[in-house]
Amino acid sequence: MSEDLKKGLEGVLVAESSLSYIDGDAGELIYRGYSIDDLARSTSYEEVLYLLWYGELPDADALAEFKHAMAEARELDDSVHRLIEDLAAADEEPMAATRSIASALSATDPDATPDTDPTDLDANLRKGRRITAKLPTALAAFTRRRNGNDPVAPRADLDHAANFLYMLNDDEPDEVLADTFDMALVLHADHGLNASTFAAMVTASTLSDLHASVTSAIGALSGSLHGGANQDVMEMLKEVDDSEKDPLKWVREAMANGRRIPGFGHRVYNVKDPRAYLLSERSKALGEAAGEMKWYNYSTTIEEEMIEETGIAPNVDFYSASMYYQMGIPIDIYTPIFAMSRVGGWIAHVLEQYEDNRLIRPRARYVGEQDQSVPPIEKR
Amino acid sequence: MSEDLKKGLEGVLVAESSLSYIDGDAGELIYRGYSIDDLARSTSYEEVLYLLWYGELPDADALAEFKHAMAEARELDDSVHRLIEDLAAADEEPMAATRSIASALSATDPDATPDTDPTDLDANLRKGRRITAKLPTALAAFTRRRNGNDPVAPRADLDHAANFLYMLNDDEPDEVLADTFDMALVLHADHGLNASTFAAMVTASTLSDLHASVTSAIGALSGSLHGGANQDVMEMLKEVDDSEKDPLKWVREAMANGRRIPGFGHRVYNVKDPRAYLLSERSKALGEAAGEMKWYNYSTTIEEEMIEETGIAPNVDFYSASMYYQMGIPIDIYTPIFAMSRVGGWIAHVLEQYEDNRLIRPRARYVGEQDQSVPPIEKR
Repeated sequence: MSEDLKKGLEGVLVAESSLSYIDGDAGELIYRGYSIDDLARSTSYEEVLYLLWYGELPDADALAEFKHAMAEARELDDSVHRLIEDLAAADEEPMAATRSIASALSATDPDATPDTDPTDLDANLRKGRRITAKLPTALAAFTRRRNGNDPVAPRADLDHAANFLYMLNDDEPDEVLADTFDMALVLHADHGLNASTFAAMVTASTLSDLHASVTSAIGALSGSLHGGANQDVMEMLKEVDDSEKDPLKWVREAMANGRRIPGFGHRVYNVKDPRAYLLSERSKALGEAAGEMKWYNYSTTIEEEMIEETGIAPNVDFYSASMYYQMGIPIDIYTPIFAMSRVGGWIAHVLEQYEDNRLIRPRARYVGEQDQSVPPIEKR
Repeated sequence: MSEDLKKGLEGVLVAESSLSYIDGDAGELIYRGYSIDDLARSTSYEEVLYLLWYGELPDADALAEFKHAMAEARELDDSVHRLIEDLAAADEEPMAATRSIASALSATDPDATPDTDPTDLDANLRKGRRITAKLPTALAAFTRRRNGNDPVAPRADLDHAANFLYMLNDDEPDEVLADTFDMALVLHADHGLNASTFAAMVTASTLSDLHASVTSAIGALSGSLHGGANQDVMEMLKEVDDSEKDPLKWVREAMANGRRIPGFGHRVYNVKDPRAYLLSERSKALGEAAGEMKWYNYSTTIEEEMIEETGIAPNVDFYSASMYYQMGIPIDIYTPIFAMSRVGGWIAHVLEQYEDNRLIRPRARYVGEQDQSVPPIEKR
């Protein structure tokens, strides 16, 4: 038993996993042996879900069946719509709303009952499909309600990514937008034992069910040291824009003032995050298509200066920010969109946890008082 | 960097804490230096909350002020009542309902806003007070709604424990019941880095807020390897009763059939859990008062046989089961009641985490495929 304190659990191996592997020195990320570049360029989010959950890429029949089952599961129960209305009326923070909605989905899931073994694989694949299919519907409905608009019902003929943009905007996206958004979902689907995935595993390790595990993960993703960073990046880019300063001057001043620049550095990458390359390409392409390069240019200027001054490379959040912004997505739902994608990875890791479970219970070193005795209240 | 796999994180020190200490060999549990026996016999749940959150036992004035603030925070917003109605109508599992309700409390908490620093201590003490004050109201309302009864509004003149029993039963409890229930809350309030507390810390470590952290913890507590065990114990005792067998014969047969007996053993205790002694006393007293000793007797028979045959001693869940049952509490809300108490500990650990935070991100050993390339779909 080691007596070293490992507050961040750095380097502690808590699981064996066949899901994703990060080579932090080479800047490589694979899902089940496939490089993230290969997957991003040639598969859809639904194919990646299938790969993560079933262990292999689907053939055409399996994919068609899987997409059909996903599309069928998109509608929300009336009680979930009521919750969304109340959360929107209270102007709930979008990640908190996402968490409350995901949690409430168990109430109407036919496989989420006290009699279902929480580790039942078939039931979990059905539950996982429903959760993943319903989260975009809920997020689009919440975002529209907040703005005083009625939700748009899902369309079963559209793929997962395109259907979300359709429900969000009440407008079918063109192919470039749909593909770009689909690629963003592919890139965010899994990433080893990040903190939200680990929160899901800790929850699952008590034999809590899939809804409980996913809800824990959403809670963990909401923090600014994790999923919250993409929103921080966009707020910074808007600040650069509002300042009307030269972006290089802006970032130099910010760094000179000791300000933390969001979207840089990652505990597991020592070089540029491979996802940042792909997102940067798309951010540039969107700028070119719209004839407005400023968001992309602010980003590259900040990136170059950060690398020159600190050697720290951008992470996945840095270019997803300007990409989502150019797609017209409201800034405060970037992190819920991250959740919409990562839920596929959370579910896959929970399935792995159930397969060979052990309760996750570390220790704390007690550094508090000893040998106190309770005085009567009048003597305190 | 150790390359040993530690699936359960056994013995891994992930934090320093001044909150509680368990001596597993001596069978001792302390909160901030006070033994659990001393606290159980001479303090109320509110005093223990104050001790955990503020670091010292309150004097009479501080306690009065704290109780007043807690009592004032008990009422639920209409939107939370609507959620409870929907969850009850869907016959949601009570721990899942507790999780969804706790999550939704952030929507109407004046300190849970995007502008509030999630680590702000004063804001967190207010949020923690509200969450802890409202959970019993919500649980009582949910339990009553399920049975077709209207919720009972909280009474500010009653203490935390007594008020819960009053809201649950629409009947003010006598002093013995209120004291017994209060003691159960004191005993369950904290217990080192159990899995639910750790889930709260993992969530907080991304700088997610208190509501997210508590929601994660409730998710983790719901598993049968953690909070779910007290319900399993009572179901076993009822099975003994229904069998009309001699309890000794029943337990011998069950063990001979390789059946897992719930409520025994604990990763950190090598001897009898000190909380089990105190709960056993109360379970016996309740039996004597009611002139019905069978539940207590089944429990002691099973305990003696288990210790003789396996050397494994009962844990906190073993006697809380018969105690709650004799108090007339529905079996499937034993675990939500555990949450109602442990929320005090979760909040205290989250405050500690924020004070000296580091992102909790362990690693997995990748054991999956390598060097795959995506074939065109027609070639899969």
